[in-house]
Amino acid sequence: MEPRTSPASIGERRVFDALFAPRTIALVGASSDATKHTARPQRSLRHHGYEGTIVPINPHRDVIFGEPAFPSVTAYPDEIDHAFIMVPGRAVAAVIDDCIEKGVPVATIYADGFAESGPEGKAAQDAIVERARAGGLRLLGPNCSGILSTEPSCALSVNAAIEQLPIKSGSLAIISQSGSMTGGLLSRGLGRGVGFSKVVSIGNESDLAVGELTDWLVDDPQTETILLFLETIRDAPRLAVAARRAVDAGKSVVAYKLGRSDLGRTLAASHTGAMAGSAEVSDAFFRAHGIIRIDNIETMFELPAMISGHRPSPSHRVAVMSTTGGGAATVVDRLGSFGVDIVAPPAELVTSLADRGVTIPSGPLTDLTHAGTRADVYGAVIDELAASDHCDLVLAIAGSSAQFQPEISAGPIVQASRFGKPLAGFFAPHAPDALETLTDAGVAGFRTPEACADAIRAWTAWVEPAKLEFDAGTDMSAVHELLSGFGATGPNEAQAAEVFAALGIGTARTTVIRPDHAATLKGRGLEYPVAAKVLSADIAHKTEAGGVVLGIANEAELEAAVERIREQVSASHPSAVIEGVLVQEMVKGLIEVILGFRRDPEVGPVVLLGAGGVLAEISRDISVRVAPVSFAEAELMIGEVKALTGVRGYRGLPRGDIAGLANAIVSMSQLAHSETPGVSEAEINPLLVRGEGEGVIAVDGLIVANPAP
Amino acid sequence: MEPRTSPASIGERRVFDALFAPRTIALVGASSDATKHTARPQRSLRHHGYEGTIVPINPHRDVIFGEPAFPSVTAYPDEIDHAFIMVPGRAVAAVIDDCIEKGVPVATIYADGFAESGPEGKAAQDAIVERARAGGLRLLGPNCSGILSTEPSCALSVNAAIEQLPIKSGSLAIISQSGSMTGGLLSRGLGRGVGFSKVVSIGNESDLAVGELTDWLVDDPQTETILLFLETIRDAPRLAVAARRAVDAGKSVVAYKLGRSDLGRTLAASHTGAMAGSAEVSDAFFRAHGIIRIDNIETMFELPAMISGHRPSPSHRVAVMSTTGGGAATVVDRLGSFGVDIVAPPAELVTSLADRGVTIPSGPLTDLTHAGTRADVYGAVIDELAASDHCDLVLAIAGSSAQFQPEISAGPIVQASRFGKPLAGFFAPHAPDALETLTDAGVAGFRTPEACADAIRAWTAWVEPAKLEFDAGTDMSAVHELLSGFGATGPNEAQAAEVFAALGIGTARTTVIRPDHAATLKGRGLEYPVAAKVLSADIAHKTEAGGVVLGIANEAELEAAVERIREQVSASHPSAVIEGVLVQEMVKGLIEVILGFRRDPEVGPVVLLGAGGVLAEISRDISVRVAPVSFAEAELMIGEVKALTGVRGYRGLPRGDIAGLANAIVSMSQLAHSETPGVSEAEINPLLVRGEGEGVIAVDGLIVANPAP
Repeated sequence: MEPRTSPASIGERRVFDALFAPRTIALVGASSDATKHTARPQRSLRHHGYEGTIVPINPHRDVIFGEPAFPSVTAYPDEIDHAFIMVPGRAVAAVIDDCIEKGVPVATIYADGFAESGPEGKAAQDAIVERARAGGLRLLGPNCSGILSTEPSCALSVNAAIEQLPIKSGSLAIISQSGSMTGGLLSRGLGRGVGFSKVVSIGNESDLAVGELTDWLVDDPQTETILLFLETIRDAPRLAVAARRAVDAGKSVVAYKLGRSDLGRTLAASHTGAMAGSAEVSDAFFRAHGIIRIDNIETMFELPAMISGHRPSPSHRVAVMSTTGGGAATVVDRLGSFGVDIVAPPAELVTSLADRGVTIPSGPLTDLTHAGTRADVYGAVIDELAASDHCDLVLAIAGSSAQFQPEISAGPIVQASRFGKPLAGFFAPHAPDALETLTDAGVAGFRTPEACADAIRAWTAWVEPAKLEFDAGTDMSAVHELLSGFGATGPNEAQAAEVFAALGIGTARTTVIRPDHAATLKGRGLEYPVAAKVLSADIAHKTEAGGVVLGIANEAELEAAVERIREQVSASHPSAVIEGVLVQEMVKGLIEVILGFRRDPEVGPVVLLGAGGVLAEISRDISVRVAPVSFAEAELMIGEVKALTGVRGYRGLPRGDIAGLANAIVSMSQLAHSETPGVSEAEINPLLVRGEGEGVIAVDGLIVANPAP
Repeated sequence: MEPRTSPASIGERRVFDALFAPRTIALVGASSDATKHTARPQRSLRHHGYEGTIVPINPHRDVIFGEPAFPSVTAYPDEIDHAFIMVPGRAVAAVIDDCIEKGVPVATIYADGFAESGPEGKAAQDAIVERARAGGLRLLGPNCSGILSTEPSCALSVNAAIEQLPIKSGSLAIISQSGSMTGGLLSRGLGRGVGFSKVVSIGNESDLAVGELTDWLVDDPQTETILLFLETIRDAPRLAVAARRAVDAGKSVVAYKLGRSDLGRTLAASHTGAMAGSAEVSDAFFRAHGIIRIDNIETMFELPAMISGHRPSPSHRVAVMSTTGGGAATVVDRLGSFGVDIVAPPAELVTSLADRGVTIPSGPLTDLTHAGTRADVYGAVIDELAASDHCDLVLAIAGSSAQFQPEISAGPIVQASRFGKPLAGFFAPHAPDALETLTDAGVAGFRTPEACADAIRAWTAWVEPAKLEFDAGTDMSAVHELLSGFGATGPNEAQAAEVFAALGIGTARTTVIRPDHAATLKGRGLEYPVAAKVLSADIAHKTEAGGVVLGIANEAELEAAVERIREQVSASHPSAVIEGVLVQEMVKGLIEVILGFRRDPEVGPVVLLGAGGVLAEISRDISVRVAPVSFAEAELMIGEVKALTGVRGYRGLPRGDIAGLANAIVSMSQLAHSETPGVSEAEINPLLVRGEGEGVIAVDGLIVANPAP
């Protein structure tokens, strides 16, 4: 990953300006029939006050809706900044060639039938991208409805909603992978009174993708929050860099991602031609890079004001005040089910208010009841909470009064924003005026308890991005040397155990009895009882193949076991090459876990810790992080796996070696993260967690080699 | 539970009419100061067009806002239907006496400081209720802000929202346990264009409670859907009867209940003085009696039209059509995470549409894409889906077109309602006009994908209420006889095993070696290996007390074990009475579960099936139902416990005796449900599930006796 922290280059800025603030736009395939889609961009641009030059390109017309038309891009005498290509898919390539010849910096392609339609479309798309790359032309799309920019106005889109909506300028930017949702999102935001800087239908991301656009928007002075509507993640490294730069710039990236259920993944796949990853993996990615993941559509528009100008907080203590206990409970009950607790005000705060004649309860919920429906009382309480160090966010709730007397609660909430602490307002009734008061003042107001709780949950998961590199002290050279010796097929089970040992992970003592060896432990440093397992790269399921014998108590049993394994495996897998029999001391632990990593096609290397056992896949009792994982983060992972509750200290059950397990997670993440030659994934299953101070023991594991290049 | 199926009695109807349609209202404690709460009901009644007689009761005024005032209820010369009591708490009792003397049928008490404030308030409340009961006066409240009825208009409330809101008449009724949320709920519904028949702030439910009010509203011709905002359930039996009558009347009861998280429970408790039950228990109650439980506030107002006039469907197949794939995915992804799948249209339907020139995909999501944004296409598809037998509900989604051209999608959705199938509409953009089109036509339109998915999930959980009684063939007499012989302390462990056996649940073979018996299995019909456990009502934790020895292989070990148990238990619990040592054959099963029942203080007897083991309480891998449980419902319970996936048939793991387990659940539910003398709760832990056809075996269990009356 490129450790980019500087703003966009001059070349990138030129493309950015051509994309969003073109002086001259060529509308290739513009129609003179007002009922056609292809007539809309011209109308939309003018309707919303575009002040540049519009050049309709149409070989059959001289003038289209009052603008002189040209037969081709190359026929136009002056410079063109942005070509909006609306010709059918098969005609796109020729237009691309014209754009390159003309020196156009960016083209947007509306046509569909490319990568989203299958292999043939993918090939056509690749060919276009190759031409464009070679010619120095950047592409948005294909399968993209266009862009909207507000200052200066540029409504360059076939989207009917963008044409018809009363666009309001503001600090939110939208990048949507769903073309058909782009207008819906904009419309919902405008309906809530928020304004937008840029809106992008990103299409198939053949060239310009979510990550790069996000990165550019971090440098856009008109943009504060970048909202992503995602079906997949195509350029994770660039998006990671962009999101980290956003955090450093005091901006934020908020993501809504489909594919949280199997059904949703199927739909996302059929819809965009991209296989979405699992929710846990994308959540891990978002967390690692400071992206705020929300779960309710409306939260996209309601959350940004809550965190505008803030960095992720190191702690996430939520104070809640309300004039309606029932109304507060609709939010707080939901927060509780997300594991977000609320904090009680300190005694000094209660006393300080009491001295001024304001009585508040000492419990976690500051319920003022009906007595609090006075601006002076409400204001005194919210000011104290916003100024106090005991909490990191204040949720202020009001009841029916908010509908007809916004000045009682919405007024004081706006005033309290001067303390610079994240604030959230929720009103129990339908209270459009109170919400507008907050929105106009740049304070977060939530229309539903569900979006409010979603936003606060998302905020509690918004943490400072994890370090991308290990400390300089980390030395992986021994591991790399070991790995480089294993050849193309990669390490076998015994060799994988050596790698885990080199990483500092405890492994069961093991020896290999080769076909020409005597079946004895003499001189091998192991003690009975032991287990014996066939060692063969050709056998995936050792037990089914008759290749495992457990509980071997002495030399005679070992000899018999080795013999039996050889016979049974030869019978079940006549063509398998048997390297030998792996003999391993039988060890006991308090609990079995699975620890592994894989290179996710979307987000790269991720580390997984999960409950072991046959039902591991059913219980989905797992924790996932993007590699590398710090010791502290590894401890959080252990805390997220319910099955480990027992060994974390519960009801007098024996405690496990949590520090040892955390170290093993860190080590596995090093293997995942480092530029390790030849390793695409690894898994220890089971990893036994033993008692405190006794470490962990890898019993069985595998390391999967990269496919040969 | 009273098996009531008839409409309200004449006496109840008189109270109902006096409550909601009083001809004369006494406003006791009415103020002549317009800034006071106690002046509001008079103003609110007149503002909303109340046509009856208002009688202000105030010993210090002759006229209040133009109406002649009287010093007391008894001083008024004519009949009073409804006394609205606004005097301070300490003065309420005297007013109650006046009302009784006057023969007023119903009084509403606004004052707080009663049961919700602590034991003293509870005593004061009880005293008032006792007086009222004796005098034939029904009470609403205390701690109640009043009621609203629309036809005829009666806005009898101190609630400022009710006074100020433009009330619209309609078929929804609200009963709210939160006074401060009553106005908020009404306001949200009105803000969405729906209308109301009755709104009740139920207060402390000292007399009239949610169940009875719901029951009456089932008979109210102006009410179709009864919305409950609940913090607890105080009168479960009556509410159960009411909800069942609602289903039979083609009406529905929709509940939003706080207390889904521990935090929410705490708040609900501090707020109402009632300890809320766990989410699983209340969900089981709602399911058993046909109450629709929803999770998002706005679903309350958006769902009713979806099911209006319908009974619960025996199957819950959802068809989804859309003009926006991304917009559809926001709902469908969420449905998938709730386990709700969508069904593909049958081939004939696809063909039939193709014959008329309409192409739809054959997959589960009928995505028409932009080509479907024409009223004729949209209408053809929704009509086919609504008329087809392959689905039980149609979810129709539209994109940006819905905002500016509601006739394209909202029009056809309204037309499709003629097929009489549940319909749900969702629009991706902010589309108030399209939503209004649906609302005005009585068709469900959802503003957010979250509320839409919540409503459909709730509908899939809405099933025909379970039978309340067992089949006549069930004979519990042997069990009852056994139980009646155990005396006040209830059965010990060995006797509990006898009860489980009498219920037809397999139990491990057991014998008791009394202090005067020889420690031998001779003549006892058991085989080694066995386990030995101390038998004593005084010892709760047998293992900690040194009272358990496992894996006893022969007579000598048994003798030693019995001796050791006696010694260790005598040492650790010197005063315990040791009845003997229970000896049990050691049996093996595929998996351990917990099966039990308890009498929940809110909803009565509930049966719980859960994963066994030390982490049972952490994993919360449980299924809960209200007793009695049918065999079919017991199978559903088994399907809900993840840990049982293995024994249900998974990856070649040995199958367990699911039928045997289901029978055990049914038997436990019989014990829970029947009028069993002396039993308050029971639990088998562990219950071993053995292989198919081998049954289940109760290894350890207890039966808790009722406290002596």
